[in-house]
Amino acid sequence: MNIKILRYGHRLIRDKRITTHCSLVARTFGADEIIIYGDEDEKLKENIEDVEDKWGGSFKLSFGKNWRKDCKKLAKEGYKIVHLTMYGLPVDEAAKEIRKHKKIAVFIGSQKVPPEVYSLADYNVAVANQPHSEVSSLAILLDRIFQGKELKKSFKGGKISLAPSAEGKNILRN
Amino acid sequence: MNIKILRYGHRLIRDKRITTHCSLVARTFGADEIIIYGDEDEKLKENIEDVEDKWGGSFKLSFGKNWRKDCKKLAKEGYKIVHLTMYGLPVDEAAKEIRKHKKIAVFIGSQKVPPEVYSLADYNVAVANQPHSEVSSLAILLDRIFQGKELKKSFKGGKISLAPSAEGKNILRN
Repeated sequence: MNIKILRYGHRLIRDKRITTHCSLVARTFGADEIIIYGDEDEKLKENIEDVEDKWGGSFKLSFGKNWRKDCKKLAKEGYKIVHLTMYGLPVDEAAKEIRKHKKIAVFIGSQKVPPEVYSLADYNVAVANQPHSEVSSLAILLDRIFQGKELKKSFKGGKISLAPSAEGKNILRN
Repeated sequence: MNIKILRYGHRLIRDKRITTHCSLVARTFGADEIIIYGDEDEKLKENIEDVEDKWGGSFKLSFGKNWRKDCKKLAKEGYKIVHLTMYGLPVDEAAKEIRKHKKIAVFIGSQKVPPEVYSLADYNVAVANQPHSEVSSLAILLDRIFQGKELKKSFKGGKISLAPSAEGKNILRN
């Protein structure tokens, strides 16, 4: 399975931390890549590359120029577009279908998304029909796609990893 | 079950949006209350009260003065302290025990937390032993405690609610 996250409408100062958290969730919860639309943000890219360097894995972050063109291109390549929105269908139902596909592109907003995203998407999916966060929505969607197995994923090539600990920190140097 | 979230180390500008997202996740995923330690932030409180007013429910947000005292007080009242940290034990195992308790206080950091939190906690719990976000960690912990039922929770007394929709927005005025 290949999962790309499309992050719409990133603004340099306002969205810095939320987009960072979205990227880290994408990486840790089993997505392969995040493509960010909006302001280019070299510091954000460096931060995620530093995480990757230290903790391992092969997650990619890049900046896209045109989300419309990219969505159409991805659809042609066989990707199913999943739009996370509180207006959508319940994630537990939707994930049963979504996880059958091999290529998934998950669209998440930061600013309000243009109405055409709702029709362009193959699935409009809600993690509860209540306001919360794209960070938590993305985590729950990926959790439902991978059915909890993502939490046991191992990351190769990092400098450190952790062993679970009941109290304190158990850091392993690889 | 009563669940309180203790948010440690809130800083006015830097943490504004992440603490807002934590509060919204707490509310939507079935916690009863969030207590914030650090800078008092009236705007944040207003924002969450506005959400409550519009979307319903009885979630509370307040600012605490002394997290140490409050943790000790909560422990005396029978609350089990759950500290979310990437160094902890796997959430799926831990949640089986945690959900047996009737009173739970979940401690989440924004800044680095003091080492004593690890020993003060009844459970140090990790949502994957990799870096991501307190927003996603809190969502997954609450999801595991409520075993997915939190996503179907209804909120009473709001002005609007949503009906799930395959495309577009289906807003109900109550």
